Amino acid sequence: MAAEIAEQPAVLERLLGDPAVRDAAVRLRAARPRFALFAARGTSDHAALYAKYLAEVALGLPAGLVSPSSMTVYDARPDLSGSVFVAVSQSGTSPDLVDSTAAARGLGALTVAVTNAPGSALAEVADLHVDVQAGDERAVAATKSYTAELLALRLLLGPADDRLAALPEAAARVLADDAHLRVADRLAGTARLVTTGRGFSHPTAREAALKLMETSYLAAFAFSAADLLHGPLALLAPDVPVLAVVSPGAGGDSTRSTLARVRETGAPVLVVGPGGDLPVEAAVPEDAMPVLEILPLQRLAWRLAVDAGLDPDRPRGLAKVTRTR
Amino acid sequence: MAAEIAEQPAVLERLLGDPAVRDAAVRLRAARPRFALFAARGTSDHAALYAKYLAEVALGLPAGLVSPSSMTVYDARPDLSGSVFVAVSQSGTSPDLVDSTAAARGLGALTVAVTNAPGSALAEVADLHVDVQAGDERAVAATKSYTAELLALRLLLGPADDRLAALPEAAARVLADDAHLRVADRLAGTARLVTTGRGFSHPTAREAALKLMETSYLAAFAFSAADLLHGPLALLAPDVPVLAVVSPGAGGDSTRSTLARVRETGAPVLVVGPGGDLPVEAAVPEDAMPVLEILPLQRLAWRLAVDAGLDPDRPRGLAKVTRTR
Repeated sequence: MAAEIAEQPAVLERLLGDPAVRDAAVRLRAARPRFALFAARGTSDHAALYAKYLAEVALGLPAGLVSPSSMTVYDARPDLSGSVFVAVSQSGTSPDLVDSTAAARGLGALTVAVTNAPGSALAEVADLHVDVQAGDERAVAATKSYTAELLALRLLLGPADDRLAALPEAAARVLADDAHLRVADRLAGTARLVTTGRGFSHPTAREAALKLMETSYLAAFAFSAADLLHGPLALLAPDVPVLAVVSPGAGGDSTRSTLARVRETGAPVLVVGPGGDLPVEAAVPEDAMPVLEILPLQRLAWRLAVDAGLDPDRPRGLAKVTRTR
Repeated sequence: MAAEIAEQPAVLERLLGDPAVRDAAVRLRAARPRFALFAARGTSDHAALYAKYLAEVALGLPAGLVSPSSMTVYDARPDLSGSVFVAVSQSGTSPDLVDSTAAARGLGALTVAVTNAPGSALAEVADLHVDVQAGDERAVAATKSYTAELLALRLLLGPADDRLAALPEAAARVLADDAHLRVADRLAGTARLVTTGRGFSHPTAREAALKLMETSYLAAFAFSAADLLHGPLALLAPDVPVLAVVSPGAGGDSTRSTLARVRETGAPVLVVGPGGDLPVEAAVPEDAMPVLEILPLQRLAWRLAVDAGLDPDRPRGLAKVTRTR
């Protein structure tokens, strides 16, 4: 897991230099979709949530995260003409994603598979395939495939922006900073924590919580900064730290405005972002910051596991590839 | 909270007898929408998730849960012509829901407000208003407004079915059964648990977790039975009980098939459903079972709070009405 975390600047560099993703982006726009659907599981579902925000904000499309069970368990057969259906999966093998993508294609959607496995069943079944080229990922807890999926989806769905070229070097700088060690010390003995963020950084909060759960078995709860105020605020207490992703931009501004309510509960707040406890410089526009913001959180999850005497490469009960129907 | 839980059979009876919801259903179908969007927060977001499954399975529409921030924070202005946009809110007052519904109407959507507040800003701003008529709800933890929202959405989006008339009596029978007391005893001292379900019962798992968090501050994690296998399975252990909603039907069959993997972790499994630890008879079709399945879970949340010396009517840090932008 540590080795794969360290590979990320090179993975981002490779993907930025690949014209294939941009070709897929051109074909997607040429189809002039009227709405966008995303299907994924686990870590890739957080990349899909990021893509949903991109579709809504950058493409101006209504968008939804598909419940694969509607098609694979209940046999729903919606009319998907005029839609784009994007399935995101590291391995490209989970039967529910393969089957729902095949069904979506048959129902009229332009289907796109975003995977780290060009020969996979999912890549084969979709109209377009985007290879995130993260290289073989062996740790059960996905890291480099996640940031590669984020960047691939940004290139596929977002506006062209020369500033994205800054990502590999910015990622290397974030990974050269050992602030996560201080945060790990502060979190030693913590049983429960909350992660939060809004808009583009909401998926970062969700992915951070999953990493902490998978590797350290921490009770890590993720909520959008708005949802947090509608019920889960009751969870907060002085022994429940909050990891808040505060991006530079409108989403971060909104998150910051909720932190006053959070601090009233006595919960310690640790900030991920420019000048934060886990510093992430504003090297790219807000809509690409999730590629950088997750990096110190991946390292934090790894470190907390090691500090607790656990093996982050072998989470209990999990296999690398999960197949669900 | 206990009094409002007990009112639910009467609330369901009242709503079943109201022709206004059926009129709204006729108008919605007459508009022949091509896709469905749902916006909500907190407990109502779980009713919206249920509605999303209904739209996909019963109406055959692609559907999505809106991120209100896309419109209210990032000013996204998607073309929503041909869509139906349904906002669900007990109080009908949260500015992000009111603003995103107004924006959706301006962008061409047929807008529907499902609220417990006919004079609210949300009810006023939408094309159609469905009043769930749950009566004044004063407990912070929503109960009767949730089942009323579920039934209203079932009447709005699902097929006509005479069997729904059985709901009030079936609800009364579930509420007359004190099985939740035995489950509360078994869960005494539990710090962490997982709730799960699939398809129509996935929202039940999510709402149960929120109730347990709000009232007992339990670390309650909800996952769809498929998502559980993609990472969160690592959380499970002999001291982490799993509350599994196993409905009669395809969703329940799918959940049941994952429970073998769950049991391998040593986690105790408690079943909600026909013949389960929290029995809920199969009185209505699977797509209406969520109205009944949440009832023993509401009582369980209340009981665990009282057993722990907490006041379920006054969760720390929460107000009844939350306003987010």
